[in-house]
Amino acid sequence: MSVTLLMDKIEQTGNPTVAGLDPRLSMLPEELLTRAIAAHGETLKAAAEAVWVFNKGILEALAGVVPAVKLQSACYEAFGPEGFALMRDTIRLAREAGFYVIADAKRGDIGSTAQDYSAAFLGKIRVGGTDIAPMDADALTVNPYLGSDCINPFLEDCKAYNRMIFVLGRTSNPSSRELQELDVGGAPLYERVGALIKGWGEGLMAPCGYSSVGLVAGATHPEQAKALRDKLPGVFFLVPGYGAQGAGASDAAAAFDAQGRGAIVNSSRAILCAWQKNGGSFADAARAEALDMRAKLREALGK
Amino acid sequence: MSVTLLMDKIEQTGNPTVAGLDPRLSMLPEELLTRAIAAHGETLKAAAEAVWVFNKGILEALAGVVPAVKLQSACYEAFGPEGFALMRDTIRLAREAGFYVIADAKRGDIGSTAQDYSAAFLGKIRVGGTDIAPMDADALTVNPYLGSDCINPFLEDCKAYNRMIFVLGRTSNPSSRELQELDVGGAPLYERVGALIKGWGEGLMAPCGYSSVGLVAGATHPEQAKALRDKLPGVFFLVPGYGAQGAGASDAAAAFDAQGRGAIVNSSRAILCAWQKNGGSFADAARAEALDMRAKLREALGK
Repeated sequence: MSVTLLMDKIEQTGNPTVAGLDPRLSMLPEELLTRAIAAHGETLKAAAEAVWVFNKGILEALAGVVPAVKLQSACYEAFGPEGFALMRDTIRLAREAGFYVIADAKRGDIGSTAQDYSAAFLGKIRVGGTDIAPMDADALTVNPYLGSDCINPFLEDCKAYNRMIFVLGRTSNPSSRELQELDVGGAPLYERVGALIKGWGEGLMAPCGYSSVGLVAGATHPEQAKALRDKLPGVFFLVPGYGAQGAGASDAAAAFDAQGRGAIVNSSRAILCAWQKNGGSFADAARAEALDMRAKLREALGK
Repeated sequence: MSVTLLMDKIEQTGNPTVAGLDPRLSMLPEELLTRAIAAHGETLKAAAEAVWVFNKGILEALAGVVPAVKLQSACYEAFGPEGFALMRDTIRLAREAGFYVIADAKRGDIGSTAQDYSAAFLGKIRVGGTDIAPMDADALTVNPYLGSDCINPFLEDCKAYNRMIFVLGRTSNPSSRELQELDVGGAPLYERVGALIKGWGEGLMAPCGYSSVGLVAGATHPEQAKALRDKLPGVFFLVPGYGAQGAGASDAAAAFDAQGRGAIVNSSRAILCAWQKNGGSFADAARAEALDMRAKLREALGK
């Protein structure tokens, strides 16, 4: 099971965190873009090339410290097709370097279309007699708004190719309450989504007690994460919102079970931009920040 | 206003429909892929090349008949970066040929990320001193699950670049009822979403009485589309579900106002696969199907 692979990597690094590889040009040392523009002009290709050098440095710096990386698809799509190629290449490099790779694309569409999204990120597509994995991530984030028939194709590929999905439950942004906290029969909508997620995971349960259908639960709502944690014992949580979005280690700790398992906490900007705050090379600063986050989270988990 | 541009094109063609350019390899005449594989091997590049030839033929066949095309992003992402490049190229060709182009990507994420998605599809990204429009569509579909702060960046770009968004309201798939029909304070969730959409559109109202913030309302739920239509007079509807998903012209007609305006009906498979059902060249069959759909819809609208 894919969730077992993720939990093993967390165990090996002693670090239930995921580094968000969400690069914007403003986060890069200026010389990276200058050099790429010298080679390719002021083009999307230059942008993608600069970020590729940055990503390689970050991945090298985080190897052995962080078990997983999460690529925010929007940051790559913003460079058009060149960015999508950069995303594919970064996923490949990260997996080769031993990271568990989550594509954070929050896809969601009707069944036949969900099949295509699933093939793109988790599965394969047949061209002539050859099966090709277009993006080849370990896991994908998906949106629940369209209901079960939009999730089922992903479940099929999770089984066939040993992959995982994380479904949006309670997101970390302020206005998430507008819909997600609406009262539906005495409970907030996100709890109803949580119950659906639990059901979707029943066919993908691993011996460790968690399923390969996870849930996104923002660290910015720690009481709600705690309540979800209690209600959904077999559901693994992906926890955004740590660091730049305002939540700390003790907030994030609410998403873990009594053994300090069952969740992984994401930090993006704090790691990628550490060099801007603390000086030093971007790679060294990212590693130091990741080590600091590990220490804080382990302390909050009593480890 | 972008919605005015769309309505003008509908007026010019006398045809409130949008052709879904959602190509799968199984929809193409075999020789297109055979030829592409001969040139590029069994690769994603070959797949993208075959679909490019198909898309060009479809666009040529539909010019002057259909005012708009909608590209389902999943069908392109399924070919990886090569597919994303194909999507960009198809958008460009379609706009040059005079079509209004909707990128059907159903994106949705927290504010800072939504900004990147918006830049990717509707806006621009700056590389050095050059502003580049990565995908450059007229309109984008978005998901409402994360609330207002995820929509705001799209609204900014709709204003700055004269673009449009369509927010998922009531989708056409069977399990959409699981969340979208949940009772929230005496009304179904999709109506609450509809009210939010109305509000988001207030700053983007065109003289024609419609705003550039539209709503997706499946033709498979005609009574609900009718109720939404009555409640949301200034909101333009994008109506999927016609044809292959089971809805007919009279179902789709429920989404229009009393003047037969305010909506556009999508058909994908029925147009793209017409040659498999009716014979002839794929382009001629697509054009004939589009003309037939126009006639049926005009009849249902009493035109």
